[in-house]
Amino acid sequence: MKSKNIWKNALKLIPGGNGLLSKRPLRFLPSGWPTYFKDAKGININSLDNKNYKDFSIMGIGTAILGYSNSYVDKKVKKAISKGINTTLNCYEEYLLAKELLKHDRFAQQVKFAKGGGEAMAMAIRIARSSTKKYKVVFSGYHGWHDWYISANLSNIKNLNNHLLKNLKPLGIPKSLKNSTIPVDFNNEKKLIQIFKKNKDAGILVVEGARNQYLSSNFVKTINQLKRKKKIIVIVDEITSGWRETLGGVYKKAGLLPDIVIYGKALGNGYPISAVIGKKKFMEKGNKTFISSTAWTERVGFVAALATIDFMKKNKVFINIKKKGKFILNSWISLAKKNNLEITTNNFYSMPSFYFNYKNIDNEVLHTMFTKLMLEEKYLATNYMFISFAHSDERINKYLKSCDKVFLKISKFLKKKILKNSKTKRRLTY
Amino acid sequence: MKSKNIWKNALKLIPGGNGLLSKRPLRFLPSGWPTYFKDAKGININSLDNKNYKDFSIMGIGTAILGYSNSYVDKKVKKAISKGINTTLNCYEEYLLAKELLKHDRFAQQVKFAKGGGEAMAMAIRIARSSTKKYKVVFSGYHGWHDWYISANLSNIKNLNNHLLKNLKPLGIPKSLKNSTIPVDFNNEKKLIQIFKKNKDAGILVVEGARNQYLSSNFVKTINQLKRKKKIIVIVDEITSGWRETLGGVYKKAGLLPDIVIYGKALGNGYPISAVIGKKKFMEKGNKTFISSTAWTERVGFVAALATIDFMKKNKVFINIKKKGKFILNSWISLAKKNNLEITTNNFYSMPSFYFNYKNIDNEVLHTMFTKLMLEEKYLATNYMFISFAHSDERINKYLKSCDKVFLKISKFLKKKILKNSKTKRRLTY
Repeated sequence: MKSKNIWKNALKLIPGGNGLLSKRPLRFLPSGWPTYFKDAKGININSLDNKNYKDFSIMGIGTAILGYSNSYVDKKVKKAISKGINTTLNCYEEYLLAKELLKHDRFAQQVKFAKGGGEAMAMAIRIARSSTKKYKVVFSGYHGWHDWYISANLSNIKNLNNHLLKNLKPLGIPKSLKNSTIPVDFNNEKKLIQIFKKNKDAGILVVEGARNQYLSSNFVKTINQLKRKKKIIVIVDEITSGWRETLGGVYKKAGLLPDIVIYGKALGNGYPISAVIGKKKFMEKGNKTFISSTAWTERVGFVAALATIDFMKKNKVFINIKKKGKFILNSWISLAKKNNLEITTNNFYSMPSFYFNYKNIDNEVLHTMFTKLMLEEKYLATNYMFISFAHSDERINKYLKSCDKVFLKISKFLKKKILKNSKTKRRLTY
Repeated sequence: MKSKNIWKNALKLIPGGNGLLSKRPLRFLPSGWPTYFKDAKGININSLDNKNYKDFSIMGIGTAILGYSNSYVDKKVKKAISKGINTTLNCYEEYLLAKELLKHDRFAQQVKFAKGGGEAMAMAIRIARSSTKKYKVVFSGYHGWHDWYISANLSNIKNLNNHLLKNLKPLGIPKSLKNSTIPVDFNNEKKLIQIFKKNKDAGILVVEGARNQYLSSNFVKTINQLKRKKKIIVIVDEITSGWRETLGGVYKKAGLLPDIVIYGKALGNGYPISAVIGKKKFMEKGNKTFISSTAWTERVGFVAALATIDFMKKNKVFINIKKKGKFILNSWISLAKKNNLEITTNNFYSMPSFYFNYKNIDNEVLHTMFTKLMLEEKYLATNYMFISFAHSDERINKYLKSCDKVFLKISKFLKKKILKNSKTKRRLTY
């Protein structure tokens, strides 16, 4: 297998084999996941070994919200490329995109752009910290690789367990950053109140717009209160959740009142572009510190984002996606029941997930088995997925038939108790 | 003027008007610099106001090493776009680019990629700090906007004066990072020795491959000695200098022995791509900390870099550029002499610069005047420039004729003493 050998070589030259944990085969099926693509269109991926798969897994880790190689977006990008992408003068589209985004985030007056989500988050933290003397950051969820975030594990190696990875050593983070960042579980409003009561120097809160589950109304109410009473700066990370269930962030549907919102991933349908959107009083403070990068002013990202938003508006992509996600989630539940499988599910519909839920069995073996058997059906699939506009109803129904078949097989394995802790089990650790 | 009004509006929506300090009009000619481009090819830029300029200034802040809209690179990028850019599976080109880069940096065994230069530097610092207990960073030069770097100004607001900007307040940087970073002037080997003698917890050195001037042999000798004797980890920032005078970093020509090298800017001829290249023992350590980003695995940057390197190899771009830069630098000197102007120059030939050097005059007024008068000649020009492969000998000669004309005018102004501290003077501060 050509691509398998390439991956082995890549592991020698690139630590981990690539630049993104979520695209490593060990996350899905260590020895069988196809690894490299040759071309991709819609939800179809041809691997470097010339096998065709339908992607019912992470769709470019959520970037391909419209599907791969969307003609509408790509045409505009190619046209822009023909006219130049990175010159001594500025891109008009940087301004146009700022104007467009501010239509959807009415609380905000200003925007700054970056390429990646992690760097946009680091930018947001810098801006927030420029605006308050209470520099400690309370956070829930995953927010990238930068020092401010990983520093959470300096005081306790388990701090990021529920947010990023289990027992991650905070290697390379200056020890002086200890206690500068404090984790809180998603939707745990009691803990949130405690933390802010205890830490008088905590003035910044970072939460995700959704994290498998929607924001609970109590959590939202508590955050809005904290903001009003303690002048906490509220940053909402919509890098993963944004644009999937509304134009902009899902925070809007939850009634959360942010000061700064971050978008990334889906915003450019795969072309790197991220945005930090905030209230003028904070953004202008941030402008007094030095935040600047050549890569950020390159044109492709802006053009792709404008085209992607345009397409999303015209086609009401967020309604389409949510509906399909809800259907898939409910179908998993019925199919599991039909096949006597015990699963739990999460209800952020545009990114549905299920978990095998057995007590005396390593459920990761089951998840890996699901992937393996679905791969035989020509699907890239795991126990969670990002819904894209390119997932057709017809294809979803075919996929669910395969799920039914695979669930039945897993059910039989369980009955025969022939499950072992497979060596090829997926590893979600780092 | 259409673009002037757009810029005014952009300043309201985007702090500073754009994402990069170096592309702001106030850096050149606050009220007259054209601001936005419509299209660009070679060294030609058509502004949004439909005026044509030849770029003899920063060429997309050094990204457009082959010239704008290089057909060879753009064709390969467009082809890649047609086949998909960011899928659940990996890009083969990530591996190919790693392999290619390691041919040119023989000291190294591994590579990690990012999009921007600043984030690649932050990654390098994380990797280095993962590998040593002596976490303090001694640095010379400009290395981006991240906390590790800006923290230098926590102990003294002038620390970054010779490297980034004058008196930059370290807003938003945790105070606990005070003294974690120590500046040293470029080519000042005596100071370098002192710093490492005094700071036993300093184990990392960051220098630029070139900074207006080449690395001096004494500075290089000292660094190589420090590395040998004290096991200092040496990081060479080639984000700006790389690929201009050799394939890879100019550190090679100076005989510097790095542990980690960073490339960016020119590497993708304008498409965002950056690389951290290092010894396996450090890179693997860095892989035990969490460094990961979705944007980094997108395909366009890899494809663009492979094509750019290919073009540079085939056309010996680095020889071409250095020769032209040397010619322009020497021509500035002769033309200044001819017109009785006092200038000093810097000798990093691929990025030549000159400075008016008068004692009782604000030289910034003269630099601004140069830009203003050159703009009337249809050149984007300032007192420094990035040479590109697209600067033809014929056009360079025409440009130098305009320089001659403009130098004469400035000379006359100086004689008549009609210079004032113009209100429209350029501002290099933030």
